[in-house]
Amino acid sequence: MQNFVYHNPTAIVFGKGTIATLAERVPKDVPVLLLYGGGSIRRHGVYDQVKAALAGHSRVVEFGGVEVNPLHETCMKALEKVREHGVGFILAVGGGSVLDASKYIAAAACLEGIEPWAILTSGGAVVQRALPIGTVLTLPATGSESNGNSVISRRETQEKLAFASPLVFPVFSILDPETTFSLPAKQVRNGLVDTFAHVMEQYLTYPAAAPVQDRFSEGLVQTLIEVGPRTLSDLRDYDARAGFMWAATLALNTLIGCGVPQDWSTHMIGHELTAFYGLDHAESLAVVMPGVWRHQIERKRAKLAQFGQRVWGVDSAEAAIEATEAFWQSLGMPTRLRDYGVDADEAARRIETRFRQRGTVLGEHGNLDPAAVAAILRLRA
Amino acid sequence: MQNFVYHNPTAIVFGKGTIATLAERVPKDVPVLLLYGGGSIRRHGVYDQVKAALAGHSRVVEFGGVEVNPLHETCMKALEKVREHGVGFILAVGGGSVLDASKYIAAAACLEGIEPWAILTSGGAVVQRALPIGTVLTLPATGSESNGNSVISRRETQEKLAFASPLVFPVFSILDPETTFSLPAKQVRNGLVDTFAHVMEQYLTYPAAAPVQDRFSEGLVQTLIEVGPRTLSDLRDYDARAGFMWAATLALNTLIGCGVPQDWSTHMIGHELTAFYGLDHAESLAVVMPGVWRHQIERKRAKLAQFGQRVWGVDSAEAAIEATEAFWQSLGMPTRLRDYGVDADEAARRIETRFRQRGTVLGEHGNLDPAAVAAILRLRA
Repeated sequence: MQNFVYHNPTAIVFGKGTIATLAERVPKDVPVLLLYGGGSIRRHGVYDQVKAALAGHSRVVEFGGVEVNPLHETCMKALEKVREHGVGFILAVGGGSVLDASKYIAAAACLEGIEPWAILTSGGAVVQRALPIGTVLTLPATGSESNGNSVISRRETQEKLAFASPLVFPVFSILDPETTFSLPAKQVRNGLVDTFAHVMEQYLTYPAAAPVQDRFSEGLVQTLIEVGPRTLSDLRDYDARAGFMWAATLALNTLIGCGVPQDWSTHMIGHELTAFYGLDHAESLAVVMPGVWRHQIERKRAKLAQFGQRVWGVDSAEAAIEATEAFWQSLGMPTRLRDYGVDADEAARRIETRFRQRGTVLGEHGNLDPAAVAAILRLRA
Repeated sequence: MQNFVYHNPTAIVFGKGTIATLAERVPKDVPVLLLYGGGSIRRHGVYDQVKAALAGHSRVVEFGGVEVNPLHETCMKALEKVREHGVGFILAVGGGSVLDASKYIAAAACLEGIEPWAILTSGGAVVQRALPIGTVLTLPATGSESNGNSVISRRETQEKLAFASPLVFPVFSILDPETTFSLPAKQVRNGLVDTFAHVMEQYLTYPAAAPVQDRFSEGLVQTLIEVGPRTLSDLRDYDARAGFMWAATLALNTLIGCGVPQDWSTHMIGHELTAFYGLDHAESLAVVMPGVWRHQIERKRAKLAQFGQRVWGVDSAEAAIEATEAFWQSLGMPTRLRDYGVDADEAARRIETRFRQRGTVLGEHGNLDPAAVAAILRLRA
């Protein structure tokens, strides 16, 4: 096992009716920015619950309209509100996009003498302080409710970049599975595959003498296999949704990645498919990940075999890849570029060029150069 | 799944050579109490590493001599030192006993107008503030390095009581598996069984629609089954010890107990065996737990069967109990009262009487009255 530091200070408040606890958890002595997305929180009643809980808070400023794949440009408008009202606490209500945006705004609000976009181009290194954040999560998927990660897109440059900082972990996150009952099936499907991929990016590398991390990762995936079909077939099954929601948080709250090598190449390639072709984040992962595994099958064989044996009950690395892709398809997730009308050769050329420009090299061994990425994409035609 | 709040703010610093990071983590602006046990930290070199890391700290007060099953009487002597020197931070170096003592001292130091023992008799309810604590763990077992629990004994009354408070979670805990290499095999064996029992007290109740918690619990036990014999047969196997150490922390850092019923009856009965007969804590658990399971086999059958199937590959609740007891015995742990020279009838009578006096009722269904406890003990003759 590698040395590690594990520190996750976010308080998780989980269960039915927990939005009401905002009344005590949101500070009353500073103006609060209530940040949300395109208005779906009004439809499913979360907005009303939040407003009721904040009735005793006199200084709440609202900013709605954070989009899926949150834009730098939108966050900068929210930042103007933060400055105008002297906001001291951000309450993000929504899915990973709203939460990611809140982290960018919280860090940007405390920057001095640096352009906010530098937070992304530095990967978070320039963040020295941030406003405190609380969240109400309405879409299980990204783990953003309990980590310091954020992904922001910039329209003018067609870029999608990530940053991480221990300073933007939410102080608290409220997870009420009932708030997710009105999600369309497609978003539930996306969240399931996103969560699955998060686990695998931390697990599917090479054996590293980390037995607990392996078992926890396998347990999260086994949970998704168990509750995924149930939560899709009955969108109001509380137990299934609660199991999924808690799994999604634990998949990316930094715990299972402690002390092990990690491989985020699927995410890095997937981000480009989203930026160039507009695939949903989870769709891009479902397309790319089997390609990374097949391309790297010799280096990943030991772990793929363990995964196959313990999770799928199959006896080879190849069978483990097939079982995983078949499971995602069974959830209604297309897994090939052609399913999205994307020409694999074109995608390979564009992304290879961009990674060459950036000098991007991926994989737990640092051996996936831009040419290898192009080869992976061609495997996914 | 039941509603829950999960909040574990302790930073875990894990791995080789991490004691040196005390230099940055221990505050320099307040006097520090360095608390330790019977002197074993001097033998295995930890004391020297700690002192070297604290070389830049001018105000370090030492208190050694915390015993196994830490005594109220000893903690009160340490409290005098805290008051005398205006201590503002406690650094606990040792196993669970030293860490538990540090929590009692940290809470007692901030009490006003109340006798410290009220912390124990109230279960922690009277704790309003506590000094911050850091720890260097030298014995994987209790999970005290990452929770708010503490167990303290009182010599004059032959009592052993527990308290819990969110205010006594350590700020940080340093876990260097190499510091545990000089532990005697018996303490390693005890730590393995203690960890195993911690998992089972949170897991082995009845199905509660908590699939992640079940998988994580099973994964921790599977890890112990995998690394336990290895870490006992080669006391300096880093990988095996590291796997065990991380499992011990995660077994009782409150994570796997989120949202599920729990049954701490084995611990409550075991504490009395320690108080009356001096069994090691882990020994008492190994004696009592199979008795609780057999006595409650109908109510626990579904979960015992799941445990047997997923962990042991056996097909009945009875076989799961047998496999568990056999595993503990394979680690060199005697599991019967006669193995410790204790008369089961006498123990049953004494503990039944004490529980009657206290009005103690145990178990996840609240159905284990003092007569049932006596019956359990007689099963373990």
